[in-house]
Amino acid sequence: MFFHQDDLQFEVEVEEPNPRFAKMLQQAIGGAEGEMRVALQYMFQAFAVPRDHEEYRTLLMETAVEELGHIEMLATAVTKNLEGASRAQREAAREDAVIDEMMDSGQPRQALSAGLHAMPVDSNGVPFTGNYVVASGNLAADLYANVMAESTGRLLATRLYEMTDDPGMKDMLSYLIARDTMHQNQWHAAIDSLGEHLPVPASFPQEKENGDVNYTFMSTTREEREDPETPWTSGDAPDGKGEFSSGRQPGSGYADVEAMVEEMYNEVN
Amino acid sequence: MFFHQDDLQFEVEVEEPNPRFAKMLQQAIGGAEGEMRVALQYMFQAFAVPRDHEEYRTLLMETAVEELGHIEMLATAVTKNLEGASRAQREAAREDAVIDEMMDSGQPRQALSAGLHAMPVDSNGVPFTGNYVVASGNLAADLYANVMAESTGRLLATRLYEMTDDPGMKDMLSYLIARDTMHQNQWHAAIDSLGEHLPVPASFPQEKENGDVNYTFMSTTREEREDPETPWTSGDAPDGKGEFSSGRQPGSGYADVEAMVEEMYNEVN
Amino acid sequence: MFFHQDDLQFEVEVEEPNPRFAKMLQQAIGGAEGEMRVALQYMFQAFAVPRDHEEYRTLLMETAVEELGHIEMLATAVTKNLEGASRAQREAAREDAVIDEMMDSGQPRQALSAGLHAMPVDSNGVPFTGNYVVASGNLAADLYANVMAESTGRLLATRLYEMTDDPGMKDMLSYLIARDTMHQNQWHAAIDSLGEHLPVPASFPQEKENGDVNYTFMSTTREEREDPETPWTSGDAPDGKGEFSSGRQPGSGYADVEAMVEEMYNEVN
Amino acid sequence: MFFHQDDLQFEVEVEEPNPRFAKMLQQAIGGAEGEMRVALQYMFQAFAVPRDHEEYRTLLMETAVEELGHIEMLATAVTKNLEGASRAQREAAREDAVIDEMMDSGQPRQALSAGLHAMPVDSNGVPFTGNYVVASGNLAADLYANVMAESTGRLLATRLYEMTDDPGMKDMLSYLIARDTMHQNQWHAAIDSLGEHLPVPASFPQEKENGDVNYTFMSTTREEREDPETPWTSGDAPDGKGEFSSGRQPGSGYADVEAMVEEMYNEVN
Amino acid sequence: MFFHQDDLQFEVEVEEPNPRFAKMLQQAIGGAEGEMRVALQYMFQAFAVPRDHEEYRTLLMETAVEELGHIEMLATAVTKNLEGASRAQREAAREDAVIDEMMDSGQPRQALSAGLHAMPVDSNGVPFTGNYVVASGNLAADLYANVMAESTGRLLATRLYEMTDDPGMKDMLSYLIARDTMHQNQWHAAIDSLGEHLPVPASFPQEKENGDVNYTFMSTTREEREDPETPWTSGDAPDGKGEFSSGRQPGSGYADVEAMVEEMYNEVN
Amino acid sequence: MFFHQDDLQFEVEVEEPNPRFAKMLQQAIGGAEGEMRVALQYMFQAFAVPRDHEEYRTLLMETAVEELGHIEMLATAVTKNLEGASRAQREAAREDAVIDEMMDSGQPRQALSAGLHAMPVDSNGVPFTGNYVVASGNLAADLYANVMAESTGRLLATRLYEMTDDPGMKDMLSYLIARDTMHQNQWHAAIDSLGEHLPVPASFPQEKENGDVNYTFMSTTREEREDPETPWTSGDAPDGKGEFSSGRQPGSGYADVEAMVEEMYNEVN
Repeated sequence: MFFHQDDLQFEVEVEEPNPRFAKMLQQAIGGAEGEMRVALQYMFQAFAVPRDHEEYRTLLMETAVEELGHIEMLATAVTKNLEGASRAQREAAREDAVIDEMMDSGQPRQALSAGLHAMPVDSNGVPFTGNYVVASGNLAADLYANVMAESTGRLLATRLYEMTDDPGMKDMLSYLIARDTMHQNQWHAAIDSLGEHLPVPASFPQEKENGDVNYTFMSTTREEREDPETPWTSGDAPDGKGEFSSGRQPGSGYADVEAMVEEMYNEVN
Repeated sequence: MFFHQDDLQFEVEVEEPNPRFAKMLQQAIGGAEGEMRVALQYMFQAFAVPRDHEEYRTLLMETAVEELGHIEMLATAVTKNLEGASRAQREAAREDAVIDEMMDSGQPRQALSAGLHAMPVDSNGVPFTGNYVVASGNLAADLYANVMAESTGRLLATRLYEMTDDPGMKDMLSYLIARDTMHQNQWHAAIDSLGEHLPVPASFPQEKENGDVNYTFMSTTREEREDPETPWTSGDAPDGKGEFSSGRQPGSGYADVEAMVEEMYNEVN
Repeated sequence: MFFHQDDLQFEVEVEEPNPRFAKMLQQAIGGAEGEMRVALQYMFQAFAVPRDHEEYRTLLMETAVEELGHIEMLATAVTKNLEGASRAQREAAREDAVIDEMMDSGQPRQALSAGLHAMPVDSNGVPFTGNYVVASGNLAADLYANVMAESTGRLLATRLYEMTDDPGMKDMLSYLIARDTMHQNQWHAAIDSLGEHLPVPASFPQEKENGDVNYTFMSTTREEREDPETPWTSGDAPDGKGEFSSGRQPGSGYADVEAMVEEMYNEVN
Repeated sequence: MFFHQDDLQFEVEVEEPNPRFAKMLQQAIGGAEGEMRVALQYMFQAFAVPRDHEEYRTLLMETAVEELGHIEMLATAVTKNLEGASRAQREAAREDAVIDEMMDSGQPRQALSAGLHAMPVDSNGVPFTGNYVVASGNLAADLYANVMAESTGRLLATRLYEMTDDPGMKDMLSYLIARDTMHQNQWHAAIDSLGEHLPVPASFPQEKENGDVNYTFMSTTREEREDPETPWTSGDAPDGKGEFSSGRQPGSGYADVEAMVEEMYNEVN
Repeated sequence: MFFHQDDLQFEVEVEEPNPRFAKMLQQAIGGAEGEMRVALQYMFQAFAVPRDHEEYRTLLMETAVEELGHIEMLATAVTKNLEGASRAQREAAREDAVIDEMMDSGQPRQALSAGLHAMPVDSNGVPFTGNYVVASGNLAADLYANVMAESTGRLLATRLYEMTDDPGMKDMLSYLIARDTMHQNQWHAAIDSLGEHLPVPASFPQEKENGDVNYTFMSTTREEREDPETPWTSGDAPDGKGEFSSGRQPGSGYADVEAMVEEMYNEVN
Repeated sequence: MFFHQDDLQFEVEVEEPNPRFAKMLQQAIGGAEGEMRVALQYMFQAFAVPRDHEEYRTLLMETAVEELGHIEMLATAVTKNLEGASRAQREAAREDAVIDEMMDSGQPRQALSAGLHAMPVDSNGVPFTGNYVVASGNLAADLYANVMAESTGRLLATRLYEMTDDPGMKDMLSYLIARDTMHQNQWHAAIDSLGEHLPVPASFPQEKENGDVNYTFMSTTREEREDPETPWTSGDAPDGKGEFSSGRQPGSGYADVEAMVEEMYNEVN
């Protein structure tokens, strides 16, 4: 059961409304890296955690609920960036600077369909989709999905931070970036708390997997090359259950190398 | 800012788990008539209501938050319907009745991608999309969208009610249907409270619209027919601003009727 | 069976071709509020009306057919707005003003994929989807969907009207807005003609719905508040079948208020 | 401007209603090979034909209008297949055979969202999308798109024909297959009427294209092979403007063949 | 099994980076006419060709593999167009010209989600979809789909060619246009090699199709018109199996012409 | 530049063709956890790696190319599962067991659109979308996305393994699961090789983020609760740059606790 309190998690101020930045913010609302995704992802993951893992269920649901509040903050930011263009912008434009900007800059639906308010779409105008949500029913897989979501989410927020000069927007983004820092850390901490879990899913008995190719880096370059001696071609694998080696795709050798060599020889001689 | 309390708005019990009904319930979660749609629709509408219409903003947000709790109830119902098939079903099937059912009945992703849990997709497996959300920035248009959403939503819930014999599922649906009754009524009451608002948007001066065709039912049957004397071809229009008449598409008469008649005459003689 | 006559329902003139306005018009063709949606929605609804409701079937199909003609008008308007930019625009731009505008303004596919013609996409370039169509098999639900479609449709048309100075475009939009006025009115008249139909679907016996919560506004604010005495918390409900009251989510009270108070007391003392 | 006449282009009868076949027919309505696609494709193509190509514009629009009538026929067929299951089917099933079938067979939305009527979705329940429509602004490209649409469309119709034993359905499909025969032929005839048009677009001066690779079949097998002497590696090209030859991807030879050979030599010796 | 060689099929140079052209190029990567479509289309078609049609299987797979290399070329071109704006552009813009351009011109995700690199989306930002791929299991239908794909693909490439002044981009496009010339020709040659194959699918016995309407052009204009004497209303049909005639939709005549004429007569007199 | 060799990376055998398993396998081809996703994801990531990170570029591209071969293997498996049902299945069914199965089990398009071959769709029939691809332009974020993709991918493969009894299918899946083990390990090894990289993106100076909330777990339960003393509420954060603490949403305390307490006191007394 959910509840709401009518003030924002963090106050949102916009000094110089900027319709183009409103468009950018949409990516953080309805985009693949946005808050709708994480809010719904953590919520559906929480729904799937059995009651005897209460600790994780709570972790997921509490964070889902926080993210709902981020949608609210960002929607407020979009509205405030569209409420009225700055005086400077207005003077440059003929009549209605805000609408003009939206028409120009590729998010006309924000004027036409939403009356200059936030929408559940990304910065290109593509609608949010349930496809973005990963809730696999396997806790380790879900937590890695969350690490990824917060990594791309924080990346997006830092990009937005660099694109604005507005102090209010910088404050809000500084807050959201900080939360993403926490969320990355909390998902990593939760993964660590699982103990041995690699390869995911750990429940599958590894003796059933093909033992010839499960720790071999498989080169697919056309011409065979030397083992590049990288961290993924030799040494212990991170799961602690195998040792890396280097190889080729099975069957990709030249079936009849002698004939091949002869043919090539003839070519050059 | 949002909060959560770790019990359901209404307790969800399933006596006889039924994977096929789990699939059906997905329509009420991620479908066009489902709870994700209304939760997000009311939320985005609330974001767009200016602060001086507090009353409506609160109405919309409070209901949005209630709908979040309905997603939670339905997700619980899906999980419980998938948790284990009934003894009867299990005995009939070879090994894993639940997975077998999902494989058969066209929602294999619920087993393959979600480990037998709820997903943000509809009963056909099509993901939820931001396209479902209507938040136009015009309160009257939004409220009509909400009447429609609750009408199709209640229709769906009653269809689900008829499809199940499980007392727990009937109880849950009886609760949800009752809430849809209330929601239909509250949106109608909110529309009534707007006073004169037709045609939407009322702010557009009607003298700017083409006065020749704004209260005329336009027949498009190939052969002209008599005015059928329906409630939409005569009498006062519901907006109280015009009188219905009956007509044809402009220009759809035979340009040169005499020639036409002559031609047809020759055909029959 | 359908037929076509090779002139438009209403003549479309464009004095000053404007590629950006062409992009805007796409919303009225392939967008959620556009003519493809209503044409197909009314058509599929008509397909579903049983033969003994001929009157409604005819109403729906005749209007569907009219809307097909609106797609045609708008496609003509798009083409004319792209046919050649105005002299003024051409001189400002280097070589091909129209293509330049499309490249700039976020609908490049209109040049690249369609050779500067109309497309079945919205103003953000997102393709039309069958998801927009509501045809529920329940006449009342369908008619409310139509009221909503025409409300958001007329809203869009009036927004487009305000965005253009072109007399030809204003004439065309004045015509389309007038038709939307009629269509809103005709759907309301059709709803009225149904008699008692609330809550939709009226065929579901209300004694099966949970009688405790079907006329109660359910507050979800975190802190309990006074009944706000709104039109949706007291008085007769619009369906004439219940009386509004005001309440909280079931079970959302503080389970052990005394303990709670004591805890809070300690905090402040 | 469009018109409608209230009887079908071809009468639709169903002797033994079959919900599974209703689902199949959806592919011919809202699928990639379906009638919504061709109706809208020909319509948007017609919108884009300039007035001085009246002949082609008429050809396209008249066929578009015919296809609208096919949607109507197929929607009728869906409804009739869902109207009531056969006596045999009913007796086998517990209560409501039709709903049971839809629940089982992966199109539950047809019961849940549409009350057992036609929908703008394909047989997998995926909604129709504007993406299916090809209207490129180039007549030759469009006509090839139409040949393709009718080829896959007729293929679908023949597959449906083979899947049903119902005489009414066979009659309807026999009619639709015949129309597809005509449409394939008419698009081929229209292409022929264009005269020399290959490669599309013919307006692009071929001297601007890279003359080294425009008539060479480019082999991408890992190991070089003999010219297979196929109709596309030698002889005159169908456009009459070049002669086929056979080759490899540019730069895909072994850069330093001598070194290579030596290396391989060492491997085998 | 696939292999890769780390140089491009054709070298990609960009003299004057141009973010807007980067956006245009996305259409050729992830758009309906783009290289992802043809690469995957030919690949899935090849998977479906039975082993006894080795020749066609090889033709399809080799071309699929070539197209993978075109994605690589175009992705390189996108990156190079975004790597840094030209000095001229930089001076005009305030700080970061490239990001500014992307923000303005409707593909902000390229900065926000991809850090100024290629993405699997089209020039409007709409993601690539498996819907674009046609692999019908019927070789003739597939080859026509390929002719169409290369026709719209070459059309796109020539449009891009006309939109750029960059010599590097012109070279790359000249190469790709040449390949499209070859591919159009090779698919036509493959179709010719099939011998008689019309109407597709040729395996369906034509005596099963409705013989009354399979070679008749069906006029759907509202008013009956004269046979326009076009190549598709008389003469031999291209499949060599019928003769074109001209007609009307079955049943679309005026049922009672005499009454009709009389009615019209009265109207004019 | 890509190449192909006409044998599979691993031989695919099917002893007992099973159309339902063919449908399941589609999830591993065109689904969110499937091979099209990883092939394209690694490819687009490789395109974005600058030349001075050759090692990672090669790692990504070589794995992308391997995944292309997995699409090929799985497509072969789909075809073989559909090539003809087992004798047992055939005898049970009336005429064509395979088509019957596809019609029943919710993937009719595989028969209708693809002639019983592989398609670029998931097991629910929803088409593959470019949305699945994560290529952010930040190597660490991309590598976490890859860990996630291989975690959900291996989870899917093990679920498929458990669902089949066919020895050939078990062999193929055992091979694919082994490769997923390797890929999980190689991405982890690559992440380790980056050194300190948390929080992602590491390039953003942390002093710019809001220092009050970047290491605090933020509880959102309605009623305040004790710090649960979990690994994410105390101790060093995994990034080694902060220490976890536990708190509430900013501003979510009762503003005026004294008044609140008094009010509650009155309620209970």
